[in-house]
Amino acid sequence: MNGNRFGRMFQVTTYGESHGDAMGVTVSGCPAGLELEEADIQAELDRRKPGQSMITTSRGEPDAVEINSGVQDGYTTGTPIGMVIENKDARSGKYEPYVTAPRPSHGDFTYSAKFGTRNWGGGGRSSARETVNWVAAGAIAQKILTEYGIKAKAHVNQIGDIKAPPVTFEEMLEHTEENEVRCAHPETAERMRERIDEYQTEGDSIGGSIYFEARGVPAGLGAPRFDSLPARLGKAMFSVPATTSVEYGLGHEAREWRGSNRNEDWEFDEDGNPIPEGNTHGGLQGGITTGQPIYGEATWHAPTSIPKEQQTVDWETGEQKDIQVVGRHDPVLPPRAVPVVEAMLNITILDFMLLDGQINPDRLDDNPGQYETEYHPSSPQTN
Amino acid sequence: MNGNRFGRMFQVTTYGESHGDAMGVTVSGCPAGLELEEADIQAELDRRKPGQSMITTSRGEPDAVEINSGVQDGYTTGTPIGMVIENKDARSGKYEPYVTAPRPSHGDFTYSAKFGTRNWGGGGRSSARETVNWVAAGAIAQKILTEYGIKAKAHVNQIGDIKAPPVTFEEMLEHTEENEVRCAHPETAERMRERIDEYQTEGDSIGGSIYFEARGVPAGLGAPRFDSLPARLGKAMFSVPATTSVEYGLGHEAREWRGSNRNEDWEFDEDGNPIPEGNTHGGLQGGITTGQPIYGEATWHAPTSIPKEQQTVDWETGEQKDIQVVGRHDPVLPPRAVPVVEAMLNITILDFMLLDGQINPDRLDDNPGQYETEYHPSSPQTN
Amino acid sequence: MNGNRFGRMFQVTTYGESHGDAMGVTVSGCPAGLELEEADIQAELDRRKPGQSMITTSRGEPDAVEINSGVQDGYTTGTPIGMVIENKDARSGKYEPYVTAPRPSHGDFTYSAKFGTRNWGGGGRSSARETVNWVAAGAIAQKILTEYGIKAKAHVNQIGDIKAPPVTFEEMLEHTEENEVRCAHPETAERMRERIDEYQTEGDSIGGSIYFEARGVPAGLGAPRFDSLPARLGKAMFSVPATTSVEYGLGHEAREWRGSNRNEDWEFDEDGNPIPEGNTHGGLQGGITTGQPIYGEATWHAPTSIPKEQQTVDWETGEQKDIQVVGRHDPVLPPRAVPVVEAMLNITILDFMLLDGQINPDRLDDNPGQYETEYHPSSPQTN
Amino acid sequence: MNGNRFGRMFQVTTYGESHGDAMGVTVSGCPAGLELEEADIQAELDRRKPGQSMITTSRGEPDAVEINSGVQDGYTTGTPIGMVIENKDARSGKYEPYVTAPRPSHGDFTYSAKFGTRNWGGGGRSSARETVNWVAAGAIAQKILTEYGIKAKAHVNQIGDIKAPPVTFEEMLEHTEENEVRCAHPETAERMRERIDEYQTEGDSIGGSIYFEARGVPAGLGAPRFDSLPARLGKAMFSVPATTSVEYGLGHEAREWRGSNRNEDWEFDEDGNPIPEGNTHGGLQGGITTGQPIYGEATWHAPTSIPKEQQTVDWETGEQKDIQVVGRHDPVLPPRAVPVVEAMLNITILDFMLLDGQINPDRLDDNPGQYETEYHPSSPQTN
Repeated sequence: MNGNRFGRMFQVTTYGESHGDAMGVTVSGCPAGLELEEADIQAELDRRKPGQSMITTSRGEPDAVEINSGVQDGYTTGTPIGMVIENKDARSGKYEPYVTAPRPSHGDFTYSAKFGTRNWGGGGRSSARETVNWVAAGAIAQKILTEYGIKAKAHVNQIGDIKAPPVTFEEMLEHTEENEVRCAHPETAERMRERIDEYQTEGDSIGGSIYFEARGVPAGLGAPRFDSLPARLGKAMFSVPATTSVEYGLGHEAREWRGSNRNEDWEFDEDGNPIPEGNTHGGLQGGITTGQPIYGEATWHAPTSIPKEQQTVDWETGEQKDIQVVGRHDPVLPPRAVPVVEAMLNITILDFMLLDGQINPDRLDDNPGQYETEYHPSSPQTN
Repeated sequence: MNGNRFGRMFQVTTYGESHGDAMGVTVSGCPAGLELEEADIQAELDRRKPGQSMITTSRGEPDAVEINSGVQDGYTTGTPIGMVIENKDARSGKYEPYVTAPRPSHGDFTYSAKFGTRNWGGGGRSSARETVNWVAAGAIAQKILTEYGIKAKAHVNQIGDIKAPPVTFEEMLEHTEENEVRCAHPETAERMRERIDEYQTEGDSIGGSIYFEARGVPAGLGAPRFDSLPARLGKAMFSVPATTSVEYGLGHEAREWRGSNRNEDWEFDEDGNPIPEGNTHGGLQGGITTGQPIYGEATWHAPTSIPKEQQTVDWETGEQKDIQVVGRHDPVLPPRAVPVVEAMLNITILDFMLLDGQINPDRLDDNPGQYETEYHPSSPQTN
Repeated sequence: MNGNRFGRMFQVTTYGESHGDAMGVTVSGCPAGLELEEADIQAELDRRKPGQSMITTSRGEPDAVEINSGVQDGYTTGTPIGMVIENKDARSGKYEPYVTAPRPSHGDFTYSAKFGTRNWGGGGRSSARETVNWVAAGAIAQKILTEYGIKAKAHVNQIGDIKAPPVTFEEMLEHTEENEVRCAHPETAERMRERIDEYQTEGDSIGGSIYFEARGVPAGLGAPRFDSLPARLGKAMFSVPATTSVEYGLGHEAREWRGSNRNEDWEFDEDGNPIPEGNTHGGLQGGITTGQPIYGEATWHAPTSIPKEQQTVDWETGEQKDIQVVGRHDPVLPPRAVPVVEAMLNITILDFMLLDGQINPDRLDDNPGQYETEYHPSSPQTN
Repeated sequence: MNGNRFGRMFQVTTYGESHGDAMGVTVSGCPAGLELEEADIQAELDRRKPGQSMITTSRGEPDAVEINSGVQDGYTTGTPIGMVIENKDARSGKYEPYVTAPRPSHGDFTYSAKFGTRNWGGGGRSSARETVNWVAAGAIAQKILTEYGIKAKAHVNQIGDIKAPPVTFEEMLEHTEENEVRCAHPETAERMRERIDEYQTEGDSIGGSIYFEARGVPAGLGAPRFDSLPARLGKAMFSVPATTSVEYGLGHEAREWRGSNRNEDWEFDEDGNPIPEGNTHGGLQGGITTGQPIYGEATWHAPTSIPKEQQTVDWETGEQKDIQVVGRHDPVLPPRAVPVVEAMLNITILDFMLLDGQINPDRLDDNPGQYETEYHPSSPQTN
């Protein structure tokens, strides 16, 4: 309703503005019995953190997470996990001249239209700073999914006119984090990096896209139709700031394929189970998972904050104004959006696993040794 | 959760399978005071109905809607509107040989994986027959939005390799319904029609896409971030069977645009209100509406039911089988999906209008003469 | 939001007014594989049906249910179950003189205040006729719970000043349905019946209460705190028209008990499991089930429709008016509310069983022989 | 689902355990434009705070709230308000001997049954410490409702066998906070205080009850039936730890009233509006507000933590154990529950006000001078 909640069984609730005191996220629905410490979450936050390289904003945020609840003696208790990430380098003074003059193509105007006011510090809640919360929650989801053999990965497959060739999942795992652009094809990464530098030099920014894939997801997840996996994952992806397209499988291109080419015959796999002969379907048939890898891609428009001179109007004074958005901004979004996309994949998949009875929503079953306090009454079936 | 509910304030709940007894939809959250009769809904159902032309399935469904509740003396009462559409021409016998052998690229396998069983009659609930419910609900949403000057329209802009040039909103309104393909560019429509015939003759099918646009939507709708308008509309669009991509504004192409080109300066309109100088942003900034037209497009893969011979496996017998899907099927989806897309646009926009206080959720205000029974106690503000 | 939905995993969505065309209920979240036919539901509807005796309204409704979807060859498919119950004996003409003059203590005024209009036929949606939908849904829930050894039962324990002594669960099962009053203590039932006759003869009505109990519910259901079992069951009970109190365990009386009396020591049961030495706690500790019987009671005020002369005002004409509510009405509510209370207990408990992973939300596991179409891919745990 | 969320439009999400690092609450759906500072919330927290007198736990918590987001320059921004209250005096060591031996009638056993583990520090999340979050959220709701002339108040009307006579709303406002028991009848308060001392001296505890009332609530709030005001408020009240009964209007007693006594004729008030001649109906008819005061009461069982010797069993060792719960505990709950009940009333009523369009969900309208950044595009109605 109010935009700060995601998930049904694995529920993520967030708060925080770009230049406020702190970001916060409450995760409820994490089963008891998961080994969890702040370092697990910090590792993911560090991947998303600003100031990692020349192509990200120079804002100096340590993004240190504190867990306030839901973990006891190193294991989750099944109750809500509250996390806080303080904003240490907020400088909202920078934006004051433009309180009543919207920056071009930002959320300034629309927030004012909605709320009759806006948080002018760096875009407030429209800022991608919010995604730090998602990455924190996603780190927990990822940790659970790992125990079930599920792995989600993303990499940057296009920046402006520089396109990466297709890469394998293994290449994604190996190469994505090796370079600042987070492109799993090292040569392309270098060319992307150069292109970004050009735009940055010109005081401009550039768009790009991310390819994502999830392996090990069991068949049968998703509900027809409004809660299909692509519908809910689509909502997740379009929640990420600046996304302009989302695609699964053949995606955009499917419009040009004929049925007899796209359709995939069924075969038996080595265990005698039915398996489709390919994966043009992107792991999804009828909105439900087939057990094949889920894959797709999404597009991010160029960052709207650019030093180049632009025009705006001031609705208080009625004047036209020149505007240069001189804050600390990323020249391109996908490199830092990679961990965000992975987080939303992990959260969405785990939510389905819990909902569809693939993971016990109350407690993880297979963590021997930890349950010193355990008492399981006989389950009703065995009475 | 279970996939048959959409909307928060304007809530649509559905049931029904392709070859069951009836389809049904309950709409709750329709304010009191809307003039409504079955004919209003029937008009939209007739646009979606099968058997309209050679390029749609020959299944003979009258799709006659019955309103069971929520309307009294021609006006809505504010209580749930229950509607039923009987299935008259169900012939599930057709599918029996394939109960344990999934049709290629259908939902047969995934439904079995999920439910341990499946409704084998024509795909049961994975069938696009479900969308008849959405169109019925959408007709009500549309009727309300019309009173607020909001209009959503869609047309088919690509079939296989045949692409329509850009058209104006007025052309969409004028030409879309003139031809069987529902393309607003008449010449292209003809070429599309020919191309479809070719595929149909070959026992094959083909993909395509739809362009959609909504005008008159006020600024300020949508909540950051998980309930942004693009996130919820994306969920709506990916709920439509066979959708493989959804885009807004520049969409897929935004990855190649630089910020200084995509950004739009602010100007004053003739009334002295800020207005962006263009609409590359697709009516959405920061996930909230700008008041400019919302537009985008979506892709449908080729129908998976094709008469061409394909291969499958039977998990009961362990045998490989030839399969020809010889039911009554559409060779291409977008022409019949146009009213479905419009319905989901209308439902989504109305839901936001109600949620954001733009329309009173209990009763429409401006219908003089109808409220013979009206009693409005003083509102709390004026006490 | 709009009041016609209950449940999270086992979702019930309803429509229908007292004197409209039909009542309808959609149940989604019923796992696949339950043997189900209309007769299962009809049996429960017949218990609630009007016209069963002199102490119920004489309205002649067969309350025949039709299942429109979600069942195939006698088993549920896991997809939504749509049900319709036609209204055959609606006579809304009766109420016309009072369209702008509210009946004393009915929902007439409040519905007009909310919707600016109202369904004047017999109270429209404020009528207890709505509960026919709940009983239909509850019949499905009950059928599933029976397979898990769970049984909910209610009986009338007070009418006016006539109080039944405590009865055992077995007495409830044996005697409740033997008499028109649905009191499990036969002698008291007779006295209640006489008292009701007295009120009816005087053109008056009388209040009463119901005791309810559920056995076999496993320990561990419920989530702290807003989704505790008592919180959600309380919501269910207060949804029943005319309920004025809900209590669990010692209930109202607990205010006078000291802790050392109310507290229950823990012992070992014969299997060596911890068990409390009593059940003053009503099966609930910390809002979560202990495995002991859940019990409580609820109060219904006297029916507001009485033939006695009362006064009202007409907001159209500004006149005072005498009013006699001469429709076909029950002189007391609890006897017919017994199946409604049981339905809400069953729905609520099943909802928790599904949510807490005690029952697989997609398919019931132990129905051999039915899954001719079954295909279960290996579960992720065993990969 | 997971028990830490309440409200639909005014959404409260909580975390925190009795002896964890901090409690936290996120409020989303608070309209923009409310003047708000930490002191507003602190005032309410101080009323609920432990250690206020001899009859409350001696735990030394300052309960100092920090607002992390959603407020800018002293006004709400319409985005989520994140609040944190640190636990300063947690001493969970106290409870360690009983990790595998449940305290009598606490949530220890049920939490272990659900989660397979439990937070043994002071009951973890089953502790009433959680309600500090609710009071923080309720303080915000209260501040908004005050602007609309709505006031909710509660007082303790029974402790053990000491019953207060009926008091007026004005007496509740005047006297409730004057004494430690929070009973609005000063003489009774004194007797209650003595009775509590007796129980405390004996190492025992005692039950009690609260009467609550809300004035100024407009007619027409609530939706038939599952979202009726009594249903949602009942859920709120039964969420409060240790509640065993909830009643509205005549409540429990309504079972003994005849219809002709309970029914209330309609009259005209001085402005010519219909008004019932009394308020036995408790401000609710058909589940919707009449505009008359909403009132009712609820019962709390005696605190389960008592120094008296009790028996338990240890499921690890298989031994029986004596147990004395020697922490810092309240001997009676209602005095400290008064601000909690008021908070839940305020949250529930505001949620309905927002949902039913009585308060704009995006921004409060009548706060001149504050919206320096305001831009309201023309509303769609006036175009």
